[in-house]
Amino acid sequence: MLRIPSLLLFFSCGAVTLHAQADSDSLLVRSIYDEALGHGEAYENLRTLTKEIGHRLSGSQSAAEAMDWGKSVMEAYGADRTWIMPVTVPSWTRGTIAEASSIGADGAATALHITALGGSVGTPNNAIVEAPVIVVKRLDELNPESGVDATGKIVLFNRAMDPVLINTGAAYGGAIDQRGNGASAAAASGAVAVLVRSLTHALDTLPHTGALRYRDDAPRIPAAAISTVDASWLAHALESDPAMNVRLQLNCEAFEDVEQGNVIGEWTGTVKPHEIITIGGHLDSWDIGEGAHDDGAGVVHTLETLRILKAIGYEPQRTLRFVLFINEENGNRGGKEYARQAGIENEQSKLVHVGAMESDAGGFVPRGFRIDASDAATDVVRGWRALFDPYNVHLFRRGGAGVDISPLKTLSPRPTLLGLSPDGQRYFDFHHSSQDIFENVHKRELELGAATFAAALVLLDRHLPSPE
Amino acid sequence: MLRIPSLLLFFSCGAVTLHAQADSDSLLVRSIYDEALGHGEAYENLRTLTKEIGHRLSGSQSAAEAMDWGKSVMEAYGADRTWIMPVTVPSWTRGTIAEASSIGADGAATALHITALGGSVGTPNNAIVEAPVIVVKRLDELNPESGVDATGKIVLFNRAMDPVLINTGAAYGGAIDQRGNGASAAAASGAVAVLVRSLTHALDTLPHTGALRYRDDAPRIPAAAISTVDASWLAHALESDPAMNVRLQLNCEAFEDVEQGNVIGEWTGTVKPHEIITIGGHLDSWDIGEGAHDDGAGVVHTLETLRILKAIGYEPQRTLRFVLFINEENGNRGGKEYARQAGIENEQSKLVHVGAMESDAGGFVPRGFRIDASDAATDVVRGWRALFDPYNVHLFRRGGAGVDISPLKTLSPRPTLLGLSPDGQRYFDFHHSSQDIFENVHKRELELGAATFAAALVLLDRHLPSPE
Repeated sequence: MLRIPSLLLFFSCGAVTLHAQADSDSLLVRSIYDEALGHGEAYENLRTLTKEIGHRLSGSQSAAEAMDWGKSVMEAYGADRTWIMPVTVPSWTRGTIAEASSIGADGAATALHITALGGSVGTPNNAIVEAPVIVVKRLDELNPESGVDATGKIVLFNRAMDPVLINTGAAYGGAIDQRGNGASAAAASGAVAVLVRSLTHALDTLPHTGALRYRDDAPRIPAAAISTVDASWLAHALESDPAMNVRLQLNCEAFEDVEQGNVIGEWTGTVKPHEIITIGGHLDSWDIGEGAHDDGAGVVHTLETLRILKAIGYEPQRTLRFVLFINEENGNRGGKEYARQAGIENEQSKLVHVGAMESDAGGFVPRGFRIDASDAATDVVRGWRALFDPYNVHLFRRGGAGVDISPLKTLSPRPTLLGLSPDGQRYFDFHHSSQDIFENVHKRELELGAATFAAALVLLDRHLPSPE
Repeated sequence: MLRIPSLLLFFSCGAVTLHAQADSDSLLVRSIYDEALGHGEAYENLRTLTKEIGHRLSGSQSAAEAMDWGKSVMEAYGADRTWIMPVTVPSWTRGTIAEASSIGADGAATALHITALGGSVGTPNNAIVEAPVIVVKRLDELNPESGVDATGKIVLFNRAMDPVLINTGAAYGGAIDQRGNGASAAAASGAVAVLVRSLTHALDTLPHTGALRYRDDAPRIPAAAISTVDASWLAHALESDPAMNVRLQLNCEAFEDVEQGNVIGEWTGTVKPHEIITIGGHLDSWDIGEGAHDDGAGVVHTLETLRILKAIGYEPQRTLRFVLFINEENGNRGGKEYARQAGIENEQSKLVHVGAMESDAGGFVPRGFRIDASDAATDVVRGWRALFDPYNVHLFRRGGAGVDISPLKTLSPRPTLLGLSPDGQRYFDFHHSSQDIFENVHKRELELGAATFAAALVLLDRHLPSPE
């Protein structure tokens, strides 16, 4: 492993040629990858987070345990100070019952693989709802003018993610209205419950959960994700047996909000300590699986970045804030509170938030970055192409950088936001399902992601122009 | 799905602006990806090859079945003609016994996970060999001047693949001398057998086989791969108990060569039928696992390329040869025979082999190409960057294009050779092991690989300059 002599670090502060600066950057980046691949702790940290603590739904006991753990790792890795920023988060439980079956005209029952959508109400009195089914692919099929009558029915939303889109995130985005808004759209036209085709390209029997949003102007009806195989089967079966009913039973429950918080570790800058760069992922996860890719990977990428930079003897110019956000999955209250306080810091003190990075797209092999920044800052980031070329990191596209850091966009001056872009082909196989577990994260891919994240932080720290 | 009107294809033959040509290429490439992702058959073909036929060691009955199957798929997909090019291949069997254990000074036995290296002799009389062990990391530690005495011992080669290299193939290349040449190096200094640390970054109990080469000037001694976990454990245990012995038993056997062959499907060009472009992978595999990534993926990439081009109505300018090579793993006799006959075709008839492409690096998400070509042809291929950018295919590096097609380099004029480069981070987890099975290939990644392979073939066909 190459350790960077402190002499090299000195270069970044002085008047040096661009060539020498590029050499210095190149050696720094190489030392970061060597440390991540040769002495990495991200994988063991992910094992601890997923196997010892487990899934971490906002408001749960395990989320609270994860907060303590994350803070202690930051301390062990040498953060100057750590604290919890209190955030009031929702508390919801899936319950113990999530059952559905189809009942044919001949009375034959077929069990369906389902799980409640996050935030769903239970079935009335937690009892079985039985109703006929209509199948739609688009929400506007439920508009009054469409002539579809959903009154008293269960609506199956069965639009698949588009397989020909190369970007699986775009395919997800093209289908997510069914999960987010389907329940209220169906309720507004009289439905009693909804089943939503799971958001994955995989054809299997895994249901994938995720947040729904109830509108205030429609009844709150129970909503469940159904596996892709079951959704396709049910839609097909209904063609030959339109009188088929579905029985659904859920006992989800919502409780009073509770106080949890964002976990923050700070490392004070040596040259411009009043300028803040934030780097993070979200600590909360859904309550099935282990939140390994979503977003255990982002959590350990963040912690590993701190560890790597300390290990190679890096001395940050700006103040670096390592943040494990709470409540990304069902409210983004952690991200909103962080941005609110950052705004206060910007206004009331001499601090300024110049940049933020997030890892919340899985632990797969890193391909590049989504850039959400001014034209000038975007050009700075795109100038890193050659530095990342040896690591096969090549995507420098504009796009959303991450849910948790996105509220920082409203700050003035506008901070530069970057999102780590891992390869996305496998992400939705696991996302929000019982299979988002440690065993489905690859050690080297996770380490390469951590190195890429850490390298980008160093380059931001060294080269992001200060606000005028 | 977009199907290309034949009008568009016409453009490539006429005098058109570069801009129109780029538009036409872009639409063609898009239609290829749409077909692969929307109507792909590669995954089902791989299931048939791996689950119905199974592994396919040269000389085996299953390799012969795979030849018949491959030829029939080419016929079903509309090749103008198909044939088998006879190739005499080795016949070797692993046998039924591959056992090893360590015997401590206290007599305690610990079983070790091993498998014979390909081509190894059995232990003498197929009986147990028991001997003390010496551990080395480099072959030159066995040189006479090193002072190491291996007489009567079992040598454990225990150099790990370098984890800090980003390119796992380079890490493999940096450790492979232990497997390929370790047995003869050890035998020359008196050893009775060797164990070779499996060539993978993974720390697990899977042994990974692969070919060894016996020198003529040293005794042929038995050689086995040992899992990384067992190799590390054994090396560590020997430090505290140097008197520990290892027992090894193998009953491998070599037989007379048998005749099998390369499977070839030809599609005659419409403009320059005398110019041949070859595209292929290798049909044979090792005899553990199912040869799913190595090289079932390359086989189905090749077949899918034919299917896709027919489905979109492509009309090739040159003659395309789809080739499933035999015997890549332990002799490359298929690749050598193909090049020998290509040389005869070049000399004796009016044919000329202008290009060849191979897929033999797994079914993972495609990253780009290894280019083995003249400077001018390399520039042509690098000119495709923008066309492939929407598909995240970005590597256009010079390098070896594939074992099977590499003998074509000796032809005059020199053909342009391209190798498909999938992401390599997971490849050596499975390579040559019992886990190189269908279940470890991802459907979309396999389909993206097929599309990338097919698109490159079309671009070669349309834009590779003809020899002067």
